[in-house]
Amino acid sequence: MTRDLTPLFKPKNVAIIGASADPEKVGHIILLNYINEGYSGKIYLVNKNPAEILGMKPYKSVLDIKERLDCVVIAIPAPAVPEVLEECGKAKAKSVVLISGGFAEIGNVDLQSQISAIAKKYNIVLVGPNCLGIMDPRSRVNTLFLPAYKLSKPKIGSVSFVAQSGAVGSVILDLIEGEGFGLSKFISYGNAADVDETDIMEYLMNDDETKVIVMYIEGIKRGKAFLELARKITKVKPVIILKAGRTAAGATAALSHTAALAGSYEAHEAVFRQFGFTIANDLVDLLFYAKIFESERAPKGNRIAIITNGGGAGVLTTDAISSSKYLKLAELSEETKATLSKTMPPLVNLRNPLDLAGDAGDKRYHDALYPIINDPNIDMIIVIILFQTPGADSKLAAEVIELKETIEKPMVIISVGTQYTEMHKIMMESSGLPVYDSPRSAAMSLEALLRYYQYKNHKD
Amino acid sequence: MTRDLTPLFKPKNVAIIGASADPEKVGHIILLNYINEGYSGKIYLVNKNPAEILGMKPYKSVLDIKERLDCVVIAIPAPAVPEVLEECGKAKAKSVVLISGGFAEIGNVDLQSQISAIAKKYNIVLVGPNCLGIMDPRSRVNTLFLPAYKLSKPKIGSVSFVAQSGAVGSVILDLIEGEGFGLSKFISYGNAADVDETDIMEYLMNDDETKVIVMYIEGIKRGKAFLELARKITKVKPVIILKAGRTAAGATAALSHTAALAGSYEAHEAVFRQFGFTIANDLVDLLFYAKIFESERAPKGNRIAIITNGGGAGVLTTDAISSSKYLKLAELSEETKATLSKTMPPLVNLRNPLDLAGDAGDKRYHDALYPIINDPNIDMIIVIILFQTPGADSKLAAEVIELKETIEKPMVIISVGTQYTEMHKIMMESSGLPVYDSPRSAAMSLEALLRYYQYKNHKD
Repeated sequence: MTRDLTPLFKPKNVAIIGASADPEKVGHIILLNYINEGYSGKIYLVNKNPAEILGMKPYKSVLDIKERLDCVVIAIPAPAVPEVLEECGKAKAKSVVLISGGFAEIGNVDLQSQISAIAKKYNIVLVGPNCLGIMDPRSRVNTLFLPAYKLSKPKIGSVSFVAQSGAVGSVILDLIEGEGFGLSKFISYGNAADVDETDIMEYLMNDDETKVIVMYIEGIKRGKAFLELARKITKVKPVIILKAGRTAAGATAALSHTAALAGSYEAHEAVFRQFGFTIANDLVDLLFYAKIFESERAPKGNRIAIITNGGGAGVLTTDAISSSKYLKLAELSEETKATLSKTMPPLVNLRNPLDLAGDAGDKRYHDALYPIINDPNIDMIIVIILFQTPGADSKLAAEVIELKETIEKPMVIISVGTQYTEMHKIMMESSGLPVYDSPRSAAMSLEALLRYYQYKNHKD
Repeated sequence: MTRDLTPLFKPKNVAIIGASADPEKVGHIILLNYINEGYSGKIYLVNKNPAEILGMKPYKSVLDIKERLDCVVIAIPAPAVPEVLEECGKAKAKSVVLISGGFAEIGNVDLQSQISAIAKKYNIVLVGPNCLGIMDPRSRVNTLFLPAYKLSKPKIGSVSFVAQSGAVGSVILDLIEGEGFGLSKFISYGNAADVDETDIMEYLMNDDETKVIVMYIEGIKRGKAFLELARKITKVKPVIILKAGRTAAGATAALSHTAALAGSYEAHEAVFRQFGFTIANDLVDLLFYAKIFESERAPKGNRIAIITNGGGAGVLTTDAISSSKYLKLAELSEETKATLSKTMPPLVNLRNPLDLAGDAGDKRYHDALYPIINDPNIDMIIVIILFQTPGADSKLAAEVIELKETIEKPMVIISVGTQYTEMHKIMMESSGLPVYDSPRSAAMSLEALLRYYQYKNHKD
């Protein structure tokens, strides 16, 4: 049964239990989030202490609130949680984000079982405990109690991130913005006393705002349900997964972190691969994959053309492509060579990788890319731009962005360097061009894209 | 025979052939470099056109210069090079940096052979052609014709970088600064008509200013001499090598780039491994390795402790360590556990990885690191600091920097994120603490450090 998580992401109103006037308290930070983000629903504060909070009078209990609540955020010490959760149930609250820690992750298994039972009894959709909760830039919901100056906030987009761990979740959120792409939904679900990874994936599978699902998990709670969903989900949209606890020692560490039983990674990995999941081995890989899938371009085949303004970078990228058993260096068609022979200076060898030399600017890149875009022998394009060279500048970045709009083929950029390069990287990424900092990450991302669409388009 | 490259790096005087008043010309940019860097030796300009350049009168030929020249930089079109090189020989110039392209890399093999022959005849130490040349921040030599605003310039340090390719060289230079460590010498040697990778390595092996050698090469010119040197060099100092042209397609691409015969990579790699080289597979890896070797700390064993403020990051790092067949997760000693039990809050499990939780600040990190530093069961330390969490701030970064001074054990940081994180990353790196953006890069760097010192300390 698909659980409806809509009240979590799109609540018409919200109550904050543990709302506080003390700026150090989690309940204060979360309240400020709702105000600062511009959340347009009604906000109710709940606190036993009747003192005003930011000029608002708190309710003693959710039971005193007349309206039916879409979402209740709870940020109070663990021992006090069962009682207020019971009240949420009686008030018919639809969903709860339980921020508080102090449950199974420190051995308080019974307390957590109590929580699960109450949520079940009242049919509450509960996220947590021991989590960061929800962020949805469209509905302006943000339960993350993180200091705003410590991380950048992503713009609205189509990638949804699911992270069991709060700290890993906050790093991912910070990186999303740094990598320049947009967020649909973010959910950190902690100990999964009620809503688990399978519930969330199922919801996101059917969510029109989500085109790509990215997950960091430490364990899978309901293996059979997960397996059933896995069969279907990747036929709908790509799922990128990073599973911590790959090794025996890692699995033990996961147990003490979110009380997750990690299980055998080999078994998990076999399932992931079989059902077309993209498997990441590191946090940064999650982001590399996410941005190529966000562009939603399906390659027609595995033949890659490389255009570069640095010969050495072309050689390294050729190595990276040739090291993949899925990718292949394209042969330029005779027509492409004929066209290039008219426009390229004599020092440019008409081959793949096409080395345009260090003085190449927007004009030469344009002349080189135009026939390559139309070459039927080429399925995907890697454009290397080393911005340290004399010819590369903002006009070149603008040229590549413009050309991208005219084609269907997947195209990625490799650029690596400090300030001047970073500036252009942001310019290109915010226009939907994935930029990679190494041949390795570009090649592995193109490989993932190819393999996913091969899986998806394969007739069963 | 060791070739003396000192006149290239530490010239008492320099002549620039092709010096120009036109700001677009390479000969102008190089002249400006010498002036702007504050090079203190005498600078001679050479140009057939007698017009003044930046207020200086050029000589018609190097033969007109009375003083014996330590270094001549040549930046004129390829066909004119043999004649002026002959003049350099007659003037007994000690060394030449031949910037010009247009030789073997575009098929002009004969022209290049002529250059080689002239250099040999006059016993000139010649770097190039088709190269960026030399940078030495101590002597303030800089022949790199790159727009200054496009790349950051590294500070003085102890790592020397050798890059056959100019563009790859310029990227490396830019990244060195971004990674926060210092440069001893930089040399881009292009087609290697005279001085080759073996000459350069041999010189750097004996160079007191160089503690770590990092190389990007496309081919090896003199296999036998290289092999002889390889036997000795890593017993003196670490060498990190990235060899492009690993695959057949990559080797073909290398041939058209710097006319390098790449040879079989398997054969190369076997030699590199056998003689204790650290092998990089990507440009960014070169930098990861360089910064851990720069710290010059030899691990006593392979047992690693992980301290973290994010449980998930601890799990991922445990996975990365356990995936290496060389590294091992340490067992905390009973004494360490006893000490920690007095200072850690109850929610901290006394195990490795040690998860200090998201509210950990400088005090808790100090209390945790102190016993771990002194634990005889621990050889190397990974400190994970997720700066997105509430407790992590500049005081914590300062604390870790201070603790680092008191220990001999290798210690690295994992921090990943955007602005707030980057600020602290620079703070820690410029204090000599290597910072990594992923468990993978931290683990592979510690593994490389361990393997190198095991090789170096092994009695033959």
